[in-house]
Amino acid sequence: MTVEYEGGGFEGWQLQPAGRTVQGVLEEGIGKVTGDRARVHGAGRTDAGVHAMGQVCHFDSNTGIAVEELERALNAVLPEDLGVVAVEEAPPGFDARRDAVSKTYLYRVLNRSAPSPLRQGVTWHRRRLLDLEQMRAAAAPLVGKHDFATFRGAPRGPPPEETTVRSLDRLEVTREGDEIHFRAVGRSFMRYMVRNLVGTLVEVGRGRWPAGEMLALLESGDRSRAGPTAPARGLCLVRIDYAGFG
Amino acid sequence: MTVEYEGGGFEGWQLQPAGRTVQGVLEEGIGKVTGDRARVHGAGRTDAGVHAMGQVCHFDSNTGIAVEELERALNAVLPEDLGVVAVEEAPPGFDARRDAVSKTYLYRVLNRSAPSPLRQGVTWHRRRLLDLEQMRAAAAPLVGKHDFATFRGAPRGPPPEETTVRSLDRLEVTREGDEIHFRAVGRSFMRYMVRNLVGTLVEVGRGRWPAGEMLALLESGDRSRAGPTAPARGLCLVRIDYAGFG
Repeated sequence: MTVEYEGGGFEGWQLQPAGRTVQGVLEEGIGKVTGDRARVHGAGRTDAGVHAMGQVCHFDSNTGIAVEELERALNAVLPEDLGVVAVEEAPPGFDARRDAVSKTYLYRVLNRSAPSPLRQGVTWHRRRLLDLEQMRAAAAPLVGKHDFATFRGAPRGPPPEETTVRSLDRLEVTREGDEIHFRAVGRSFMRYMVRNLVGTLVEVGRGRWPAGEMLALLESGDRSRAGPTAPARGLCLVRIDYAGFG
Repeated sequence: MTVEYEGGGFEGWQLQPAGRTVQGVLEEGIGKVTGDRARVHGAGRTDAGVHAMGQVCHFDSNTGIAVEELERALNAVLPEDLGVVAVEEAPPGFDARRDAVSKTYLYRVLNRSAPSPLRQGVTWHRRRLLDLEQMRAAAAPLVGKHDFATFRGAPRGPPPEETTVRSLDRLEVTREGDEIHFRAVGRSFMRYMVRNLVGTLVEVGRGRWPAGEMLALLESGDRSRAGPTAPARGLCLVRIDYAGFG
């Protein structure tokens, strides 16, 4: 299933003892429609406030409802901030998370003097003009397989990752009208990693750090030297790709 | 002043005895910042729920605050759903409404099976695939100076207009990904006119009416024969143009 959500009203993807989560609301909706108590497995565990246009998830069901009907029926019971974009029958053994070969995240920075009421929920407003070329120069050495310990977790604390080595396939920085778009593609990302990369690149764009220092920053593995975590609302999980599927 | 707003939380532009309006909230903000009890005059009176990216308004003030400062100060006191995009000192006698030579409205229809939680506040969701060519053919004869009585007011009731003759300079229908965009440009529009045009064109796109009947429909002047009024949330006042300004 491909799902879209406006993350502002969710405590992230993953089920929690308390708090409204995407996984929880989806499982509830599936229960209403099919009668199944299905466990839904997502490809990426988006954090509180993060949006998705193309989150993919799977669940097992014995329902006799056809997939096209399931899409309509689920959208009829789901709230306005969560929708099912597509439902497909998966091949046996398909796992939305394990089988994903790449995830694409888009981070949108509104880069103009004035705020934008129409885009305030989906962009991070940075008033001062950011230097696109410097941010691109800073992004380039981050692409590839590295130890991304510098960009792990939140500034204060989450549990350490088992490994902080990741492959970043692409990290593109473009200007789209009055926005700067950061597009990150890779098989897997650590928690907060994209938002930490963006927060750091924006510091470069502001002229706080020279682009040439990024490699040293990456190699230091020192989380305290990276920039702030960019706010959740600018981030969107755009798509998940699978080998041999669609 | 150019202002942007997310219309969902407003009872439209115009000041009302009760209800939160754009004009009212702006006048309150200007009062806080300048101490003036200024009357704000808007170029277009957008209805409840209609958005604006480029609404223009003027007000008189004796404030000594520089225009750049005014923009920042206003945005600091205005709510998140209303923002000032630009402030300029106007030439003597400038009138935001009277001096406008054209207004551009954009109406967005989301035209795919699934709803879009991220765009639900700014699009009208029409599930069935609309026929773009038929809608274009239907839009073409509407461009020009006509009596638009067929497309006036709401289905049930508002006060009659003095004249229902208007000049529609452009009415473009395009497909942008999974959306259909209706762009209407003219010096002035009647209340609900754009939404009535869109509601009617969508009926053509659904195959309910042949495109060839549009001219007869226009000439009938019969409001009851036009399509439904498209919902407010899909409409946005994009820009106002002035002769000899910017």
